[in-house]
Amino acid sequence: MEPFANLTLSEKKALQNELRAEFDRLCGMKLKLNMARGKPGKEQLDLVSGILTVLSDPADCQCDGIDVRNYGNLSGLPAAKALFAEILGCKPEQCFIGGSASLQLMYDLIAKAWTHGLRHSPRPWSQEPKVKWLCPAPGYDRHFGVSQSFGMELITVPMSPEGPDMDLVEELVKDPAVKGIWCVPKYSNPQGYVYSEQTIARLAALKPAAPDFALMWDNAYCVHEVFGDYLPFPDILSLCAKAGNPDMVYEFASTSKITFPGAGISVMACSEDNQAYLQGLLKYQIISYDKVNQLRHVRFLQSKAHTVEIMQRHARVLAPKFSCVLDTLKREIGPLGLAVWEEPKGGYFVSVNTLPGLARRTLELCAQAGVTMTAAGATYPYGKDPYDSNIRIAPSYPALEELEKAMEIFCLCLKLAALESVC
Amino acid sequence: MEPFANLTLSEKKALQNELRAEFDRLCGMKLKLNMARGKPGKEQLDLVSGILTVLSDPADCQCDGIDVRNYGNLSGLPAAKALFAEILGCKPEQCFIGGSASLQLMYDLIAKAWTHGLRHSPRPWSQEPKVKWLCPAPGYDRHFGVSQSFGMELITVPMSPEGPDMDLVEELVKDPAVKGIWCVPKYSNPQGYVYSEQTIARLAALKPAAPDFALMWDNAYCVHEVFGDYLPFPDILSLCAKAGNPDMVYEFASTSKITFPGAGISVMACSEDNQAYLQGLLKYQIISYDKVNQLRHVRFLQSKAHTVEIMQRHARVLAPKFSCVLDTLKREIGPLGLAVWEEPKGGYFVSVNTLPGLARRTLELCAQAGVTMTAAGATYPYGKDPYDSNIRIAPSYPALEELEKAMEIFCLCLKLAALESVC
Repeated sequence: MEPFANLTLSEKKALQNELRAEFDRLCGMKLKLNMARGKPGKEQLDLVSGILTVLSDPADCQCDGIDVRNYGNLSGLPAAKALFAEILGCKPEQCFIGGSASLQLMYDLIAKAWTHGLRHSPRPWSQEPKVKWLCPAPGYDRHFGVSQSFGMELITVPMSPEGPDMDLVEELVKDPAVKGIWCVPKYSNPQGYVYSEQTIARLAALKPAAPDFALMWDNAYCVHEVFGDYLPFPDILSLCAKAGNPDMVYEFASTSKITFPGAGISVMACSEDNQAYLQGLLKYQIISYDKVNQLRHVRFLQSKAHTVEIMQRHARVLAPKFSCVLDTLKREIGPLGLAVWEEPKGGYFVSVNTLPGLARRTLELCAQAGVTMTAAGATYPYGKDPYDSNIRIAPSYPALEELEKAMEIFCLCLKLAALESVC
Repeated sequence: MEPFANLTLSEKKALQNELRAEFDRLCGMKLKLNMARGKPGKEQLDLVSGILTVLSDPADCQCDGIDVRNYGNLSGLPAAKALFAEILGCKPEQCFIGGSASLQLMYDLIAKAWTHGLRHSPRPWSQEPKVKWLCPAPGYDRHFGVSQSFGMELITVPMSPEGPDMDLVEELVKDPAVKGIWCVPKYSNPQGYVYSEQTIARLAALKPAAPDFALMWDNAYCVHEVFGDYLPFPDILSLCAKAGNPDMVYEFASTSKITFPGAGISVMACSEDNQAYLQGLLKYQIISYDKVNQLRHVRFLQSKAHTVEIMQRHARVLAPKFSCVLDTLKREIGPLGLAVWEEPKGGYFVSVNTLPGLARRTLELCAQAGVTMTAAGATYPYGKDPYDSNIRIAPSYPALEELEKAMEIFCLCLKLAALESVC
């Protein structure tokens, strides 16, 4: 294979016809393959079946002097707080245990800022003339969706392997209308970048004009290594406190990709003052999240060390899938110079940047051939990729043989899109 | 025993001294009894232990072609919708399945009205100069708390055994600032009233000035008979639709007092148009509530008939406790004319109305003697009972022998409070 640029127009046309024939053949197979979302696959779910029966009679349901089958304990089971505190490196008192989705905790925090304001808000955000939000991009579509659903103005901040462009962030937070930033600091979604120590220090030490600026620290992949050992990561709460910003940060995590997606438990960690303020609002909304499920997780996961051990079992399922994606890209796309991509050590995605202008068309072709991918543009605010270049590949859900087929089709579609643009 | 009014002052003083001595003796026992909240007791929780193991391996976790262990299905598992639809008499498509708390669904509906508006809102409620809310009282303190937490003006509507005073409700909804009403239509909290057919018809046919008026129909006790057979109850959704108000009503229910409180599943039922509108907002907040727990409930509860059967087992535990409360009141308070009370056939409470001015002092004395009760005034908006009269007794949590002791103390404290007021 040669870079397309080296081919004559008639060679390109000939290649296009050849690939188109192959594409038509694949379309005829009526495949149904999905690389759209970061969903664990069946083999991963089967790994943790033990959690289904870890509580099997009334005696199992007692913990910390609490019968978890009854009402009470707004902020969650003490043992669940202790487990998350150990995993995140913060204190149990800084933890609020949520339901099956950390997304809900994030959404609710912003909803409460909107209706009531955060601890240092001069007024509820609904009474602000304008709320702006920093969106490191490419980033997580659901984060941007939350901000957009509240009518915020989304400001794109470029990402590098170090994390968000901090020169720009420090400049932008001088605007008091800028109320927060989304961060996925470890194995960022979609690139798999791990924020550098310096980036983290600069984020912790931000001096935003808004007194209620929210550093939304979505530590979604805190124990989610794919290749290699567990990577230690600093506790953002103590870093912010040391930098004089104890109430600026809200950290989120969940067990969605440790046990069962959408049926796990979640946590919001923040300063004790923030906890007191927020629990004063949360008490009207809920008596407590599901403590039976909290105790299931405490008993099944046991400790940080045991959780990391379980994650290594997940990694043994995931690593061959990530390798399949990376190897196929290297083999099929590498020599052609049509795209670059990241080689993440953890997280749930492989981020591909095609030559500008090819992403949307590539995914259109994929859809025709029965391969569903995250929509082009989804990794940017408002769903608009200015370069039409970023594609997020989620290798976890399909079985390995399906993934191989899906990647073959993806690479074919990318080549076709590139040829279409030059023929 | 004679009504205190028939006693001379010195007889009253003598009786007061006698009761006070008894009170001091009870205080010395350092009891710790709780009749504060509608919490099922241990025996009830043990009744439903089967739900803990009803899903025990991966094969159990498949339903409606869905692997409930993974992400997806925002509005919930079809089988869970079908179960709630059967119980409530509405359609599965009208059901959104929530997490472990219907309170959260109610709160979130109002939060969304605040941040985004409901389907027919001219603007988000946060942009309204004033939002008023109708609170049939005595009523449920957590309902009033939600409205109050959003800064609404709460308007008390008197309750009768037929339900809220409908003449007044029909008058009040002519004010476009009145945006909704709280209702617990079957076995009202705290009285245990069942709204009459005529009240329900008038509520369904309301013509509020606000186009986005919300009839909040908290059917918390839909299958919660204590004495006697299951009482059929009309489907409010179809009644509202027939009356030309399809989008006015939001019905809520949960399994909190069927399986495990705070670890069950919940439902919001409303028109399909409302569902489409609300799910368009909810999709930013959550991918889906816990479908593993939804399937646990589907498998364990099976059907309306089987759910009613389980509720009859709960009733066999609850009936002696309700009888204990009612018998003790009749024996100790009845002859004295210090209070009147309801004799509910279902729900979770016995509502007592003391002579005006005695409730707060009675509960103060109870607290001194180690008996915790719902705070006086809690059943009224802003926690202020204009007559200082209503007391909500929750008989479910204590064991029967503890309940007997607690009721003995309660009656003693009521007598003491009454004597203090006349001595």
